[in-house]
Amino acid sequence: MDDLNVLPLLGSLRQGSYNRMVLAAARELAPAGVTILPEPELREIPPYDDDVRESSGFPPAVQALREAIAAADAVLFVSPEYNFSIPGLLKNAIDWASRAPDQPFAGKPVGIMGASGGPAGTARMQYHLRQVLVFVDALPINKPEVMVGTAQSRFDNSGRLTDETTEQFIRDHVAALAAWTRRLAASNG
Amino acid sequence: MDDLNVLPLLGSLRQGSYNRMVLAAARELAPAGVTILPEPELREIPPYDDDVRESSGFPPAVQALREAIAAADAVLFVSPEYNFSIPGLLKNAIDWASRAPDQPFAGKPVGIMGASGGPAGTARMQYHLRQVLVFVDALPINKPEVMVGTAQSRFDNSGRLTDETTEQFIRDHVAALAAWTRRLAASNG
Amino acid sequence: MDDLNVLPLLGSLRQGSYNRMVLAAARELAPAGVTILPEPELREIPPYDDDVRESSGFPPAVQALREAIAAADAVLFVSPEYNFSIPGLLKNAIDWASRAPDQPFAGKPVGIMGASGGPAGTARMQYHLRQVLVFVDALPINKPEVMVGTAQSRFDNSGRLTDETTEQFIRDHVAALAAWTRRLAASNG
Amino acid sequence: MDDLNVLPLLGSLRQGSYNRMVLAAARELAPAGVTILPEPELREIPPYDDDVRESSGFPPAVQALREAIAAADAVLFVSPEYNFSIPGLLKNAIDWASRAPDQPFAGKPVGIMGASGGPAGTARMQYHLRQVLVFVDALPINKPEVMVGTAQSRFDNSGRLTDETTEQFIRDHVAALAAWTRRLAASNG
Repeated sequence: MDDLNVLPLLGSLRQGSYNRMVLAAARELAPAGVTILPEPELREIPPYDDDVRESSGFPPAVQALREAIAAADAVLFVSPEYNFSIPGLLKNAIDWASRAPDQPFAGKPVGIMGASGGPAGTARMQYHLRQVLVFVDALPINKPEVMVGTAQSRFDNSGRLTDETTEQFIRDHVAALAAWTRRLAASNG
Repeated sequence: MDDLNVLPLLGSLRQGSYNRMVLAAARELAPAGVTILPEPELREIPPYDDDVRESSGFPPAVQALREAIAAADAVLFVSPEYNFSIPGLLKNAIDWASRAPDQPFAGKPVGIMGASGGPAGTARMQYHLRQVLVFVDALPINKPEVMVGTAQSRFDNSGRLTDETTEQFIRDHVAALAAWTRRLAASNG
Repeated sequence: MDDLNVLPLLGSLRQGSYNRMVLAAARELAPAGVTILPEPELREIPPYDDDVRESSGFPPAVQALREAIAAADAVLFVSPEYNFSIPGLLKNAIDWASRAPDQPFAGKPVGIMGASGGPAGTARMQYHLRQVLVFVDALPINKPEVMVGTAQSRFDNSGRLTDETTEQFIRDHVAALAAWTRRLAASNG
Repeated sequence: MDDLNVLPLLGSLRQGSYNRMVLAAARELAPAGVTILPEPELREIPPYDDDVRESSGFPPAVQALREAIAAADAVLFVSPEYNFSIPGLLKNAIDWASRAPDQPFAGKPVGIMGASGGPAGTARMQYHLRQVLVFVDALPINKPEVMVGTAQSRFDNSGRLTDETTEQFIRDHVAALAAWTRRLAASNG
């Protein structure tokens, strides 16, 4: 079967972010034939302003993001939870990327992972994100949910995942996303 | 009783935003003794990056926002709904403003208004925002909810509110926020 | 292509319920080859009690509901919003029906409709229901959402739908559910 | 100061429920002057049916529940999470209790606790419940949240709480609810 390219969207800018570590682990644990692409740099996305869009069109960083989403076979969100919801950084990127016309999330298979220091592992963020995905007409997988709680206990000092249970969840999630992507592609024809 | 200063946080940058018009109406409809302050310019808030905070502290626009929230007697969110949730612009401002130490939303009375072109009038955004407010320990009023649906039918060409029902909701919401703020202040002593 | 049987789950017991009228309209507007079955009587489902399940197994009304869900090609929720969420009646039926083993919602295509007297048309209920559907691993369609606001203006005295816009949304929703069901079935093989 | 009576609403019927154990712990840990009353038996509440209410008024078990809520100084929800949301049993009780006229939750101080076998400790249920509380105009405390995850590790074989961290959260939650109740009462006068 054809190889799959998965575009990751990372909700944290922090270099030492646990979510960056989760994304690195997902890259390593992806099955053969599934490539998790380099993550776009969301820092460059300006604050959403519809006057800017109307007068000048999509800013270059936004245009590049939209094209990357459109070109990918699937999207993988990897994000912390800020204030019980989606980080503003990530939401702002979605706000720009999802603007009509040619909304690139429509029909796109989606995976979601998150890591946090607390026990709930970004559960609250993930359900807010799922509501957003209804609007943009994306098709997220349900299971297995990857909510990495007490993240500080699951990585070594170099940022490498050491917890086997978490490893299995991440591996299964990427595999489920790949299977879902292929299933949807097969039925599109 | 003492005058109250209410800090508005506006979720849209667009000049012609219906939410900007709602905020203007709220200013006019506020009862005597209640001032809705000028809204901070959220465009200047950079994307949240905890590395920046650790190395350089709060950026100047963030520091000013935090001080404005702390100094206000109450906060009034006026925001569109983007993609069934909080605009990234506004959420990013909250992400910075809410960072410990001296989290300025704690115990703060809060009002929420929103306007949209569709019928639901930002209901989805408002419940996501309420979940955020639990984390930051703010104290939002419950009623009356101000969800201005089909906003294009409620303002004239100059952006002035013409719908009497909406006017009454806005008036009642500001009055309820003022009463709640005074009630909480009275019981703090 | 094979005919589809859709099991409706109705969240209201009231005889004059707008949601009952919406369900009747959906039955009439379903395309050829799609049958919306009689709705199960949820009144007979007892309150969920895991001690009862452990000692006596599923009560007969629950067992019948589980078998009906399992046998259907798709499920269509039609429900009011009570207190900004899912009616307890409907949620209790889901709580029983979803109990392992042989969880019948898993992988099931799902549609969602709701009607209310207010403007938001059950939006809040529908997002709570979508979160429930993640847990039970169902596969709801995203669009078009059917949120019938100010329902009292859309039906005549005999309870017959008279609003053409609403009719189109209902027709499109059932058609989208049928297409989604067939797409998923085609890719299962 | 006057003694406070807190009415608990328990979301599980199971005798061995962890939430029943949490409620028992809360009773023991309540400060002097705060009594957590016996919980009403929600099993007796029939499924909500507005036709029944219109023809016969509130059923006796519902009427008793409404009066108990109205008479209490505060309400304490203690509930499991079923299918990522509020148990239907508990939601159905709220649906009846909250029916106008004389809606008894209005202005009522509220606490929320939950226990589950998984790590998130009923977080998803609690935010759905908070949305319901907006509609019924109740006044829940924000902190500390009591989400007892991996509950099987925190109680002994007799159902007695053995985990000191959980004990402290429960103690602090009841104390915070009492303080909030007294603060609101003081400012009502």
